[in-house]
Amino acid sequence: MRVRFPLMAIGLEVVMIVLFAFFVQYETNKNTSTSPNSTELPAMDTDKTMESYPHFQDVHFMVFAGFGFLMTFLRKYGFSGVGINLLIAALGLQWGTIIQGLFRSHGQRFQIEIKNMIQADFSTVPVLISFGAVLGKTSPIQMLIMTILEITVFAANEFLVFEVFSASDIGESMTIHAFGAYFGLAVAGILYRSGLKEGHPNEESVYHSDLFAMIGSLFLWIFWPSFNSATASDAKKQYRAIVNTYFSLAASVVIAYACSSLLESQGKLNMVHIQNATLAGGVAVGTCADMEIPPYYAMIIGSIAGVVSVFGFKFLTPFFTTKLRIHDTCGVHNLHGLPGVIGGLAGIITVALEKSDSTAAVSQLAALGSSIATALVGGLITGSY
Amino acid sequence: MRVRFPLMAIGLEVVMIVLFAFFVQYETNKNTSTSPNSTELPAMDTDKTMESYPHFQDVHFMVFAGFGFLMTFLRKYGFSGVGINLLIAALGLQWGTIIQGLFRSHGQRFQIEIKNMIQADFSTVPVLISFGAVLGKTSPIQMLIMTILEITVFAANEFLVFEVFSASDIGESMTIHAFGAYFGLAVAGILYRSGLKEGHPNEESVYHSDLFAMIGSLFLWIFWPSFNSATASDAKKQYRAIVNTYFSLAASVVIAYACSSLLESQGKLNMVHIQNATLAGGVAVGTCADMEIPPYYAMIIGSIAGVVSVFGFKFLTPFFTTKLRIHDTCGVHNLHGLPGVIGGLAGIITVALEKSDSTAAVSQLAALGSSIATALVGGLITGSY
Amino acid sequence: MRVRFPLMAIGLEVVMIVLFAFFVQYETNKNTSTSPNSTELPAMDTDKTMESYPHFQDVHFMVFAGFGFLMTFLRKYGFSGVGINLLIAALGLQWGTIIQGLFRSHGQRFQIEIKNMIQADFSTVPVLISFGAVLGKTSPIQMLIMTILEITVFAANEFLVFEVFSASDIGESMTIHAFGAYFGLAVAGILYRSGLKEGHPNEESVYHSDLFAMIGSLFLWIFWPSFNSATASDAKKQYRAIVNTYFSLAASVVIAYACSSLLESQGKLNMVHIQNATLAGGVAVGTCADMEIPPYYAMIIGSIAGVVSVFGFKFLTPFFTTKLRIHDTCGVHNLHGLPGVIGGLAGIITVALEKSDSTAAVSQLAALGSSIATALVGGLITGSY
Repeated sequence: MRVRFPLMAIGLEVVMIVLFAFFVQYETNKNTSTSPNSTELPAMDTDKTMESYPHFQDVHFMVFAGFGFLMTFLRKYGFSGVGINLLIAALGLQWGTIIQGLFRSHGQRFQIEIKNMIQADFSTVPVLISFGAVLGKTSPIQMLIMTILEITVFAANEFLVFEVFSASDIGESMTIHAFGAYFGLAVAGILYRSGLKEGHPNEESVYHSDLFAMIGSLFLWIFWPSFNSATASDAKKQYRAIVNTYFSLAASVVIAYACSSLLESQGKLNMVHIQNATLAGGVAVGTCADMEIPPYYAMIIGSIAGVVSVFGFKFLTPFFTTKLRIHDTCGVHNLHGLPGVIGGLAGIITVALEKSDSTAAVSQLAALGSSIATALVGGLITGSY
Repeated sequence: MRVRFPLMAIGLEVVMIVLFAFFVQYETNKNTSTSPNSTELPAMDTDKTMESYPHFQDVHFMVFAGFGFLMTFLRKYGFSGVGINLLIAALGLQWGTIIQGLFRSHGQRFQIEIKNMIQADFSTVPVLISFGAVLGKTSPIQMLIMTILEITVFAANEFLVFEVFSASDIGESMTIHAFGAYFGLAVAGILYRSGLKEGHPNEESVYHSDLFAMIGSLFLWIFWPSFNSATASDAKKQYRAIVNTYFSLAASVVIAYACSSLLESQGKLNMVHIQNATLAGGVAVGTCADMEIPPYYAMIIGSIAGVVSVFGFKFLTPFFTTKLRIHDTCGVHNLHGLPGVIGGLAGIITVALEKSDSTAAVSQLAALGSSIATALVGGLITGSY
Repeated sequence: MRVRFPLMAIGLEVVMIVLFAFFVQYETNKNTSTSPNSTELPAMDTDKTMESYPHFQDVHFMVFAGFGFLMTFLRKYGFSGVGINLLIAALGLQWGTIIQGLFRSHGQRFQIEIKNMIQADFSTVPVLISFGAVLGKTSPIQMLIMTILEITVFAANEFLVFEVFSASDIGESMTIHAFGAYFGLAVAGILYRSGLKEGHPNEESVYHSDLFAMIGSLFLWIFWPSFNSATASDAKKQYRAIVNTYFSLAASVVIAYACSSLLESQGKLNMVHIQNATLAGGVAVGTCADMEIPPYYAMIIGSIAGVVSVFGFKFLTPFFTTKLRIHDTCGVHNLHGLPGVIGGLAGIITVALEKSDSTAAVSQLAALGSSIATALVGGLITGSY
């Protein structure tokens, strides 16, 4: 261990630098030369790409501060939660840039636009979600390996979903959230040790760690409309994704508080529900956020997600640990897995109602199936390393 | 209690969804049809409305993370401070969208623009301010009721101030800050119990809770220029509101530190002053932030607000508790009440000096009076429930 | 002490207000008069200046929340870290506005644009860096004096670097980071007391204070691309500065984790390295971030900065304390000093390779020398007060 982790981290960084030297270039003044037989890439519209920058910063904030602090709620894993989150995301965004870029350019050199940086940040999110399922069960070395493997499978599934099936998933409910959760659960299943069943003192939360986790939760909640709208293809879709996510999240909060109080003894609120289920509305509305749905529809989706998420924390997570021998440390199945599936189903229904053509609904179904299947297979393989 | 809170929360969310189904619509492609006898609303300029999005995100961050964490400074109420803040704001923004929309559309169906989302977030702020006055004295059920009632009175007063009196209040010093504080003080007066006089161990702050509160305070401080400029009608006014708020806040900090050190034994700094009085400049410059005032005038307003706020915490809050039997948990009178009144007065003076016509100054005076009067009456009625 | 601090703070604020009354004006409607013999300043393009506002907010967030919380890692100085940070920055931005404005306008009245507010925030950063070196060794009064003196020297050096030498330093690696670190080290050298050598219980970090510091560190990390691109002269340079900083920081994280694990016993990660060395890539790429460097070059700079920063914390800081009698509380030499120098050197090399003309490289060298020299002289004089 003493030198294996540093050597692997340095080795991976050197590989990234070499891959960037081969495949990545910025726009240079030379691009603007109109030489017809130039092998240079076409000039980029810099003003246009800069328009995405505020959205990028919101997503960037979610990835590094939001997910990082959400994982500090465990007494003993607080610092490793936020610290390993940073390591995964920093390595992952480099690898995500490469692998996504190569899929899109079909193996050619490519340029970096601000949208590529948003996509690179996105590509780290499934790994951060999976990390939530295995927190406390893995070493930093294992996380480096998982980062590289999971992002590779993720990029392949994204290619399937968007290029092959031409499905819609603006907030990536299926391709990021369901994918990340089921990948993590598969890894957690492999890493199961019987001692986890009884719970562990390291897993208790303490008062201050719950406040730190609340920072992360609020950051995610606040910027989720930016997440679900960041890659929209035009202003109208972007606007709809923002408004739908805003109201879905609000409904999700009210319902999550109600359900938490209903299920806890003496009507108290459970802090884990507050930190997590309030976000389920953002996940679940992700697939159809940019579609022409009436506003109250987004609120219904958010409400359903809030119910399912709280009930999942209360009943499913203990069942998974004791019966299925899958120990989901942060309960990512309830925040990302089930709401991601709800998002996928809402997408299928919306598309089926909107268009007479049934092939679009089939595409959505294929996207949901592909996201879950590749996640489970990828997770089982990764967990076996 | 066991089921009353969840039933009421679910009931309110169902009502919201039904109201949204009746009254709220997004722009759809059908809007763009030019059919002259169409009952559809006119098409929205999506690119234009998206320009407000960065301002929306800043305000959204203040409402959910800023106000939430500012209320974590009490040892025992930390989590309920930030948790109930989220519940109030999530319910309130839905109700605020409906009630403000209906006031503006005179009861017709209406569209959601980004500005409506800013206004909806704004409408939750008076409730969050009032919550600071009653923190520790109310149940979650009471907060649900207060959210609905207070936002209704708030929207009615906003209609009076902006539509009937045509007064100016860009940062809503009178309509949000003074209103929220006096509403909360009236409720706190009704809920007074003699036990509150001696103080309570739950009300003590501890070192870490003070650092959490500082997070909230800084978030508010940093984004206040966005708050005071978010609804400006043109770029010139928006720019002025930003610059004036920036310098007013800076002056407020220096003066608040000086006054805190002057009043505390051995010249130490009082953390509550630092967390609150540093923001008073943002409140006080709110009414006239977009007017053509010379820059140093904003700094003078900020300085006065800093002095008044620190002296309020030191002398007025104990007086309120012991003599007036009003227990103001977070001292909102010193952060929002008095600086809000200073803002209203600064607005009257600025308008009187700027325009020869005295009716504008009378309008401003009517707006200040209306904001305080409706707040007190609304708060007394709400507290009696 | 009892009254000296408040009197000095109030006195300085009064001086600021008077200076603003004399020298600062906003654009008013009167500016738009086309009267040819008007002494008014020319009209400002408000829409143009507002384009910088999102960048301003990112920088503002870094200065007040990022630097503030980064300094909370010490058990006892947590609150004074974040509290004095706010005081320094609030006073400093006013003085920075005046002194930078007068340098640019050659002593005439001047207008405030959003870019001036970015520059004013920038001018406080060297003081915040120096504060990190002397935290725990100074009184609030001394910090007021240091704020005024250091910003004055900083503005003079900026004038030298950008106006006289015409050097490039978009992220101000030399003029802010190296300058702030060496200024602070010079002051710390003067303030050295032998008791500091043994370390002090107040200087121990505790678990929660490390999480608070991580908040600050992540905020800085997330918004650093905005810092390095905020004052870029055109969209193309701004875009390049963003992309280069993004990848330099990512490389810096991976390498910092590797080096930390390599140097610590049993391969553990050192929290101080994680909080600080991960940012070194942002500092080091600052000077050449907007130049036409290939993308992997930025990652190499970030990697080198990560290595140097961790080794600095491990070996140089103890050496400075015991041998050089300079006690650098937060280790600013490793986060800002050395990476700032690396940034300056990378700038010289980049310019030398890019242009055949060697005068540009000489200008860069002069800028680096001037920044370090004025910092050391200014710090020694300031420390002697």
